[in-house]
Amino acid sequence: MSSTAGQVVRCKAAVAWEAGKPLVMEEVQVAPPQANEVRIKILYNSLCHTDIYFWEAKGQKPLFPRIFGHEAGGIVESVGDGVTDLAPGDHVLPVFTGECKQCRHCKSEESNMCNNLGLNTDRGVMINDGQSRFSINGKPIYHFMGTSTFSEYTVVHVGCVAKINPAAPLDKVCVLSCGVSTGLGAALKVAKPIKGSTVAVFGLGAVGLAAAEGARIAGASRIIGIARNLNRFEAAKKFGVTEFLNPKDHNKPVQEVLAEMSDGGVDRSIECTGDIDAMVSAFECVHDGWGVAVLVGLPHQNAVFKTHPANFLRGRTLKGTFFGNYKPLSDLPSLVEKYLNNELELEKFITHEVPFSKINKAFEYMLRGEGIRCIIRMEE
Amino acid sequence: MSSTAGQVVRCKAAVAWEAGKPLVMEEVQVAPPQANEVRIKILYNSLCHTDIYFWEAKGQKPLFPRIFGHEAGGIVESVGDGVTDLAPGDHVLPVFTGECKQCRHCKSEESNMCNNLGLNTDRGVMINDGQSRFSINGKPIYHFMGTSTFSEYTVVHVGCVAKINPAAPLDKVCVLSCGVSTGLGAALKVAKPIKGSTVAVFGLGAVGLAAAEGARIAGASRIIGIARNLNRFEAAKKFGVTEFLNPKDHNKPVQEVLAEMSDGGVDRSIECTGDIDAMVSAFECVHDGWGVAVLVGLPHQNAVFKTHPANFLRGRTLKGTFFGNYKPLSDLPSLVEKYLNNELELEKFITHEVPFSKINKAFEYMLRGEGIRCIIRMEE
Repeated sequence: MSSTAGQVVRCKAAVAWEAGKPLVMEEVQVAPPQANEVRIKILYNSLCHTDIYFWEAKGQKPLFPRIFGHEAGGIVESVGDGVTDLAPGDHVLPVFTGECKQCRHCKSEESNMCNNLGLNTDRGVMINDGQSRFSINGKPIYHFMGTSTFSEYTVVHVGCVAKINPAAPLDKVCVLSCGVSTGLGAALKVAKPIKGSTVAVFGLGAVGLAAAEGARIAGASRIIGIARNLNRFEAAKKFGVTEFLNPKDHNKPVQEVLAEMSDGGVDRSIECTGDIDAMVSAFECVHDGWGVAVLVGLPHQNAVFKTHPANFLRGRTLKGTFFGNYKPLSDLPSLVEKYLNNELELEKFITHEVPFSKINKAFEYMLRGEGIRCIIRMEE
Repeated sequence: MSSTAGQVVRCKAAVAWEAGKPLVMEEVQVAPPQANEVRIKILYNSLCHTDIYFWEAKGQKPLFPRIFGHEAGGIVESVGDGVTDLAPGDHVLPVFTGECKQCRHCKSEESNMCNNLGLNTDRGVMINDGQSRFSINGKPIYHFMGTSTFSEYTVVHVGCVAKINPAAPLDKVCVLSCGVSTGLGAALKVAKPIKGSTVAVFGLGAVGLAAAEGARIAGASRIIGIARNLNRFEAAKKFGVTEFLNPKDHNKPVQEVLAEMSDGGVDRSIECTGDIDAMVSAFECVHDGWGVAVLVGLPHQNAVFKTHPANFLRGRTLKGTFFGNYKPLSDLPSLVEKYLNNELELEKFITHEVPFSKINKAFEYMLRGEGIRCIIRMEE
């Protein structure tokens, strides 16, 4: 039992006081975990675009002051009442979506959209009591997606914490908490390309590159990366991307260019940008008879997907997926094992590293579109 | 070898001289089959709505005079050069779409959209030589969908002829040539409802009822039939439909009514009307996380399918299918076996029967929306 168990912990956290303003390193008080909660000592974060999106707070309800962060790895410090699946010392990945193991979604083999612990970006408090576990001089600081990992200690619902093999280096596997798993699962669990097939990946950020990595692992022989940002192409080769297509180089729709490149259409496509035109292209570029398109990127709230229904009738399939269709607690441990068995490469996603005190530098890299993942070391 | 082999056969055929005008019983000359063709003595037809659609010729290029008919059963009379898979005396179902067994589609386990012998409603001649095998006093009469079964004898490409168990009664299994297989396959091969699940079927014509029958065979425990035609409901009970929903009885979208009836959404939906609003409802009524919607009905050529892409991202799947995803030559024989083993009921689809001379009566029944299938006996 840790000596801090049951006590308020004082530690450093990077607090977002206002939308779009640099985070400020503060000393925060972190309350002990309540029933079905665990307190985690965070060792590594990796910055994901979703943190930026809600920090910029363009188009959503702003909720500040707030502690962001949701791709991270750490060690359980203490557990609240009723927690039996986790114990202090366990190596864990906190996850922004959970698994209650009781609802229809959790009981379904097909779904990972847990009714009780699913993603909620508007909630800034714990489910248990509607309160925050973070405060500065008594003033509460909001949580983010149930994780708030930009703090040396955080409190997370036990249903949002994946216990992993302690042999895994947390500074590498922390990237599995969100974007990388999302792309990997979109390929391996949803698109499921067969060996030798052709896969188109729209968008070559972390999620798209992870989708390409998934297609590579599945044995696709051609992986066509589609991006408007030329400097993505060189890096993408490491992720199995064999050909590149920049829509700006063509004066006809991307789906037509892809059909010409692939004898009538690709076998699978994975859309990782959230752009509605790319979504339509991703669907219409798959081969009739067997093509499957998978939507991953988050669309604008007013976006409308439009296509001629005959495109479906000729044997095409369109699916969407959330977090790569992985159940966070059940499936993340096996992804970690895949990494330990050298079946999955994570190092190549990590292009930068900063100490916690320089977290705003990580934000700058991402805002400039530089690199893929920046690891934030919590211990200097 | 039949005594007519290699000879022109003179026989009766119901010729459509003009769009929408009653068929006229004529004596036609049927040329012998050429390479890779077979001549079939048709014993039974069953009238399908597609015959009506092209006979009315509203919105497509009219092609007259023409011999319609594509749901039928018969016996091979003679075969052309190169035909090794069929011989005179074989019991067969001619099919409006084929299987060349050589193209990428035929070689794919997932597709039935044969590149070489797929559906072509505009072509009124044989592929071999671009000529018709039917004539009246030297004037050619156009073929329809490669089958033209409203004739006592017809010539069909060998790749569009399924050889079936001769123990099967042709006056029953002839309904498997089109609509019934389309609906059955949409359920059994594409939607694949699991045991105990809830399935919504939009449209309760022959295809929709066959989809319900497929859902029943798969073990669905609730089958909700959606139709605007009240008199469909009583008949539909025989096909496993457990509940009915008439959109006219509600002042909110059907997908909302279905979500309320099914704790958030049905597990599977199958759209058999072709109405674009029904297609959108069929997609949006499936449960997030695992729901699969299957489009079967043929849409208007200017129809646009519109939905918010987030509906996909929450784990829904939308597929389309053609002829129930059955490969005609490979799969129809096993559907016939299912019927012979009492796993599939076909009698309940058959509500009327007329002799060939009264074929226009069958058209009247269908135009009035009366019954499901009318069998046309070719021998009086």
